[in-house]
Amino acid sequence: MSDSQRRQITGFSNPTIKRLRSLREKKHRKREGHFLAEGLRILTEALDAGKTPKLLVLVEDAPLHPLAEKIEQATLDAGGEVIETSEAIIAKLSGKSNPQSIIGIYADHPTPLAELDRKLSDIWLVAQALRDPGNLGTILRTGDAIGAGGLILIDDCVDPFAVEAVRASMGAIFTQKITQASWEEFLPWLRSGEGQLVGTSLNTDKDYQAVRYSPPTFLLIGNEAQGLPASYETACDILVKMPMMGKADSLNAAMASAVMGYEVLNQRRK
Amino acid sequence: MSDSQRRQITGFSNPTIKRLRSLREKKHRKREGHFLAEGLRILTEALDAGKTPKLLVLVEDAPLHPLAEKIEQATLDAGGEVIETSEAIIAKLSGKSNPQSIIGIYADHPTPLAELDRKLSDIWLVAQALRDPGNLGTILRTGDAIGAGGLILIDDCVDPFAVEAVRASMGAIFTQKITQASWEEFLPWLRSGEGQLVGTSLNTDKDYQAVRYSPPTFLLIGNEAQGLPASYETACDILVKMPMMGKADSLNAAMASAVMGYEVLNQRRK
Repeated sequence: MSDSQRRQITGFSNPTIKRLRSLREKKHRKREGHFLAEGLRILTEALDAGKTPKLLVLVEDAPLHPLAEKIEQATLDAGGEVIETSEAIIAKLSGKSNPQSIIGIYADHPTPLAELDRKLSDIWLVAQALRDPGNLGTILRTGDAIGAGGLILIDDCVDPFAVEAVRASMGAIFTQKITQASWEEFLPWLRSGEGQLVGTSLNTDKDYQAVRYSPPTFLLIGNEAQGLPASYETACDILVKMPMMGKADSLNAAMASAVMGYEVLNQRRK
Repeated sequence: MSDSQRRQITGFSNPTIKRLRSLREKKHRKREGHFLAEGLRILTEALDAGKTPKLLVLVEDAPLHPLAEKIEQATLDAGGEVIETSEAIIAKLSGKSNPQSIIGIYADHPTPLAELDRKLSDIWLVAQALRDPGNLGTILRTGDAIGAGGLILIDDCVDPFAVEAVRASMGAIFTQKITQASWEEFLPWLRSGEGQLVGTSLNTDKDYQAVRYSPPTFLLIGNEAQGLPASYETACDILVKMPMMGKADSLNAAMASAVMGYEVLNQRRK
């Protein structure tokens, strides 16, 4: 790799650095249609999924990991830009105590609901009014693990392309379909084809293991604090609950999606 | 409730306010043996578990929720102190955009390994070198849900009494036993009585549903990035893995504990 193909940036006030920092804010991500991903592991997942950065940021004068070399080459081959800068600037960009030495800017890739092909998988995750980006990213990672097709975000959810969500997804942001829709859009779409809508709820006595799930299964996860609105529960084909042996009455939203998701997967792999 | 039993604090520089803020740092928590819990839901869980705050902080001139009234009375009955202060100071203490209006300082309550009674439950969670306080708190919450006895923290884990961990535990910090030990202490203790040590690992082909778990089961969860050290895996009675259908090779540590924990629970409730 010839260094001449890299552009060097030395100052915090450089417009590219400012742009990178701006992508930590949702309004700038929305305007640009781009988002940040950090770290060799996640960028490698992106490459494996056929996604290359529009802009790749590397630490100057540092030996490059072979996987990072591959990402750099792929970036250039796809017409992207590679810049190198100081560790201090990267640390500032990353905002973490233990900063990553490789950062990519990627085009976001939401899938419009009308273009979502439910036949891609027999399990889909659906989250409603999710507030925490770490939960969202973890649900994406769980979706990847159980072979889900993607995550459909209903109503006003946190941005799936937020840095924290991308980080928690461990790369699943690049492999899972991501669709955003209102409930009023989602429900008619769902009913226009095959699909079982399963809600987890406190308002049922039906045990989650007492149900045979039919594909494609859409697992609906409610807001972290409120759970699902009553009218959404009514629209479900079935409501189930997980046993709760302790004092609390519910699991964390990401936990619930993992426990439910593995139950559906386990029924099908038997 | 007579307001005369409350002490009013109006300034940020008040020593009690400074003390409250200091408890966000581990060194101050350790020195004092106290920690912070925030929010009516978690403080109510504490009360239900028989724990009252040494110091309770309320918003001045605000109508009190009946549950908060109960907590205030219990605090005073137990010889604790109640202070009231402005919303601005509470917001500063809380450091959240949507601050809680009730905060308690509690005595921490680690259980020494030698005093841990494994007969209390037939499932225990064991985490090694856990780094993320949100993961730790979520694992406590999962422990509560599956009826675990508690969480044993091996080696250098994040502080279970950190504000983020307490928050993510949703009150399980008060109901789950919490024990900290080195591996060199834990393993002889485990082998001095009954107990099956189960590790989740990439280094096995054994499916997690193909095993009959025997009580008491100790589920060992590795560090978020590295997983378990090889010698720890060797010490396990059995290593299992969960099916991974996607690109990633592992679940988030808290997800893994939830999926494993529900499998053990499900086997026993059948």
